[in-house]
Amino acid sequence: MKIEILNTGSELLLGSTANTHGTWMGQELSKLGLRVQRQTTVPDGVAIEEALAECISRSDAVLVTGGLGPTSDDITREAAAKALNVELIEDEAAKRSLYEYFEKRKYPMAKVNLCQAQVLVGADVIPNPNGTAPGIYSPPRLSGEENCALFLLPGPPNELYPMFHAEVTPRLKALAGVETISEVTELKFVGIGESSFHEGIDAQLAEIDGLEVGYCARLGELDLRLIGSQEAIEQGRKIAEASFADFLVSEDGSSLEKVVVELLKQSRKTLATAESCTGGLIASRVTDVSGASAVFTHGFITYSNEAKSQLLGVQAETLVAHGAVSEEVAGEMAAGARQSSGADIAVSITGIAGPTGGAEEKPVGTVCFGIATSEGVETFREYHPRSRADFKQQASQRALDLVRRAIR
Amino acid sequence: MKIEILNTGSELLLGSTANTHGTWMGQELSKLGLRVQRQTTVPDGVAIEEALAECISRSDAVLVTGGLGPTSDDITREAAAKALNVELIEDEAAKRSLYEYFEKRKYPMAKVNLCQAQVLVGADVIPNPNGTAPGIYSPPRLSGEENCALFLLPGPPNELYPMFHAEVTPRLKALAGVETISEVTELKFVGIGESSFHEGIDAQLAEIDGLEVGYCARLGELDLRLIGSQEAIEQGRKIAEASFADFLVSEDGSSLEKVVVELLKQSRKTLATAESCTGGLIASRVTDVSGASAVFTHGFITYSNEAKSQLLGVQAETLVAHGAVSEEVAGEMAAGARQSSGADIAVSITGIAGPTGGAEEKPVGTVCFGIATSEGVETFREYHPRSRADFKQQASQRALDLVRRAIR
Repeated sequence: MKIEILNTGSELLLGSTANTHGTWMGQELSKLGLRVQRQTTVPDGVAIEEALAECISRSDAVLVTGGLGPTSDDITREAAAKALNVELIEDEAAKRSLYEYFEKRKYPMAKVNLCQAQVLVGADVIPNPNGTAPGIYSPPRLSGEENCALFLLPGPPNELYPMFHAEVTPRLKALAGVETISEVTELKFVGIGESSFHEGIDAQLAEIDGLEVGYCARLGELDLRLIGSQEAIEQGRKIAEASFADFLVSEDGSSLEKVVVELLKQSRKTLATAESCTGGLIASRVTDVSGASAVFTHGFITYSNEAKSQLLGVQAETLVAHGAVSEEVAGEMAAGARQSSGADIAVSITGIAGPTGGAEEKPVGTVCFGIATSEGVETFREYHPRSRADFKQQASQRALDLVRRAIR
Repeated sequence: MKIEILNTGSELLLGSTANTHGTWMGQELSKLGLRVQRQTTVPDGVAIEEALAECISRSDAVLVTGGLGPTSDDITREAAAKALNVELIEDEAAKRSLYEYFEKRKYPMAKVNLCQAQVLVGADVIPNPNGTAPGIYSPPRLSGEENCALFLLPGPPNELYPMFHAEVTPRLKALAGVETISEVTELKFVGIGESSFHEGIDAQLAEIDGLEVGYCARLGELDLRLIGSQEAIEQGRKIAEASFADFLVSEDGSSLEKVVVELLKQSRKTLATAESCTGGLIASRVTDVSGASAVFTHGFITYSNEAKSQLLGVQAETLVAHGAVSEEVAGEMAAGARQSSGADIAVSITGIAGPTGGAEEKPVGTVCFGIATSEGVETFREYHPRSRADFKQQASQRALDLVRRAIR
């Protein structure tokens, strides 16, 4: 099945917004064993119609994102109607949903939003629980000779992603037929790099009949993607587990923070965080997990030396003798956070995120960690010379992994 | 001038690599006042030739990335030769550079690399100081009737970016001539939605001659993009400022957190945060800004009632009488954070992120804010029934906006 993606939005071509939809959809479709044949980005406006007609003439299914809003530059609905040569009509259910959306939020609905209830004749409305723009699915029969399935989807990721999973992938699977679908398993590893896999098990995995292997390296994290029959995946999984069990975080795509919260719950332990350079990112990741309140009560963000002393009891002498970015201070931060919060485990972090603030002995990217448990305090020093955002992410990753290892 | 980008590479469509080239080139060309009309991604292989022929027939300049390597899936050179109907010849200078590249690094050059010295007849070689694949510039005269300029560029960013700046942009500027250059301005608004713009100023903006207007809505944020002559943009800006000055955060694309940190610096004020449901996200956003340490010292994450009392002095009676998610508790959190930290301004947040924990009186999505300054404490209650991640983002947006408003 030939699948194309058409992303609309001038901001994507101006570069003010990264086009993450193409990447994300590519990943999601790969998991189903489906492949994207082409991706096109066009600006808001008349270019949409031309590009859409081309996509429809070339492909079996076209996924369009963006241009379903209520303002004058949102013309995807109209472009699709012209490309397919069908009318737009007001859908009663979509209109009701719109009114309900605004009522629930106690906002008055602007008249202009009514255009979002316009639907292609013969198409299905795809409900949008997180926004005002419903999606539209126009099945192949509508496009006559072209025989192309068309999905119109909203641009905001928080609206698009759930709609894609709930309403788009089941229809694509049905359109593609079962024979193209294979199983997918993603094993998530933390604290080990891609080259270790290449050197360690890549050749063994390549020998497994009918197994497609993919790696996706992120900051401080590596996903191993296995696609194929259940049997082939099982063989691959065993090889990966045997070699890298210590680094394996999840086999169902769960994030490190989710795994940490689950482990804390299972072991009936609580966590406190003490952050300097990550500025709350570790705690924010922990509290991204629903139910985190059962295991996480206190977080300390001690960006200044004074805050480290005041809130965590870090000794002035330690700060003077070793500097704020030192294993000694990290250790006292973790111990202080554990004592003050009464938590079973406390993790701490202090480092130089940059771009300024580095010195020869402690360059930008230097980071120290502390982990305090009933068995005492351990500290670590690492070096991650990266952009500020990447540094924060990678450091938070390491801190969460220290908690994971402490529980096990 | 119509400019198109053609990105080649199966990894981009599989989603295993994000397509950052399109975004980056869009940004770079916008700075020159040039616009990308379309961006296309195709897999390695025969699809390149078909897509390239389409691009050439539609546009004045086409920028192609990838497929210049030495292996079998690198066929961009051949595809360009076919699309332009010209021969490939070995370029002596390019060949010499290849040998020099390997000599300098003391690697033996594989024979397969010699194909990288193949150049379109009549084209310029674009030197690649950071890799083996030279770029190719085929000026408009080559394409005969199509009259299209063609740039073939390597995929790795560390090779592409310097070549783009040194050799591509000067040629594009010369091709475009001065008369086509337009300006771009992005105004960022917080706390106001797209439909308000539509009802308020959309019609006025549409009347401005030669002004292109675009909206990009994010969580709790709206970007208004104005494209056109300086004069047209100035007219549009004045209309937007006159109607929505109170919501205008930046005119240079700066994030809300960056604006808040700048305002704090300018007014020599410091900030503390007290977070429950956002779990550190506000502080993490503040510390994403380089130099935040000058204005931010303390952050309190008080996820439990005990932590709220212990760290922020929230009264047990207030918690019992009004519940943790209440304006009363938010007010005491902000006051306590300000007092404990000694900061000039403290912002607090307490709410129900969900998906569990809601009640009829306080459903999931209920959130209360407090802001404490030298003039006292103000509190607010809002309702944002969204996914957990979106709720956190939107609530942090509102909290940062409260700080912005408090400083002004």
